[in-house]
Amino acid sequence: MNYPSKFIENAIEEISKLPGIGKKSALRLALHLLKADESKTMALSKALIDLRTKTTYCRRCHNISDDELCQICTSVNRDEQMICVVQDTRDVLAIENTAQYQGHYHVLGGIISPIAGIGPNDLNIDTLIKRISENGQVKEIILALSPTMEGDTTAFYLQKKLTEFNLQISTIARGIPIGGDLEYADEITLGRSIASRTRSDLQ
Amino acid sequence: MNYPSKFIENAIEEISKLPGIGKKSALRLALHLLKADESKTMALSKALIDLRTKTTYCRRCHNISDDELCQICTSVNRDEQMICVVQDTRDVLAIENTAQYQGHYHVLGGIISPIAGIGPNDLNIDTLIKRISENGQVKEIILALSPTMEGDTTAFYLQKKLTEFNLQISTIARGIPIGGDLEYADEITLGRSIASRTRSDLQ
Repeated sequence: MNYPSKFIENAIEEISKLPGIGKKSALRLALHLLKADESKTMALSKALIDLRTKTTYCRRCHNISDDELCQICTSVNRDEQMICVVQDTRDVLAIENTAQYQGHYHVLGGIISPIAGIGPNDLNIDTLIKRISENGQVKEIILALSPTMEGDTTAFYLQKKLTEFNLQISTIARGIPIGGDLEYADEITLGRSIASRTRSDLQ
Repeated sequence: MNYPSKFIENAIEEISKLPGIGKKSALRLALHLLKADESKTMALSKALIDLRTKTTYCRRCHNISDDELCQICTSVNRDEQMICVVQDTRDVLAIENTAQYQGHYHVLGGIISPIAGIGPNDLNIDTLIKRISENGQVKEIILALSPTMEGDTTAFYLQKKLTEFNLQISTIARGIPIGGDLEYADEITLGRSIASRTRSDLQ
């Protein structure tokens, strides 16, 4: 397409590099910014630069942080005996949102995926091992990885690596989602939910 | 949601102000930028600032431009006798993409919409009238507005305003789209396509 301005062309080029945004959406966003108040674009640009230059990763759990240690790692209200191992920051946010977990986290920064060329050495696994061996207080590791082939491979690898420690290793429950319909559940999920059935509270 | 960094929170806040991008998409984009090379975020920010500070609107046709007059208005290959009136820049791009039109444009910057509080005075109509009366060469005005209630209202208003000039006023053809199926066309479109039938070329 022949754009009327090289600046709009450049902006569309850069915006459409973002995941899930094509040229048409980029054009719509660029025209929106052009129509809106100039301060809006300036605030957006500044926020993006700050995001990239001022945020860092927590030295201990590798979660996104403003400081060397994140809010969760420095909190005194957190249970030091539990570490929940997740793939990335989004998972930390999702679990935090449930308000059901009061322990610490460890962000792997990905999962083992031979197809994508990601091996155990590309993930924050060494630091997890080091963290457990240095801090004698950890009693339980919760593996909260996606129930996919890659997630299961990573969980299996971690379990083998963690056998040297005297730890309880658990995995988040898999089964029929709340509000889900048995009829529409896939066979594997339904099969697992029967195999891992839990005792009814009323018994 | 409780974000682990105030910079990521701020970035999500600013990104989610864009149309069609919610908090979840904004988080995904922010995490993408954090993972990607720093130069990518810097290029995006610079492109947005340049877009907002360096582009302007053509003094004559109100299309987006790098200079006081846009590429189309300054081109010597364009037919000065025709002006195609459109709602916004996107329509200019769409028509230019067809490579079927060699005349000039006039961007209204919106359409008359009493519900949205947009009246004729909010649009670039005065400059269109001025442009036609000052430049004696204009012979035809093509109204290329959307076939909606607001588009039709704007077209009607313009036609009344332009009666004082000795001009041919035309509207882009409405009918069944190329590749469209008669069966699935709505009654109004099909009715109009019969009423405005054109002579077959082979006769």
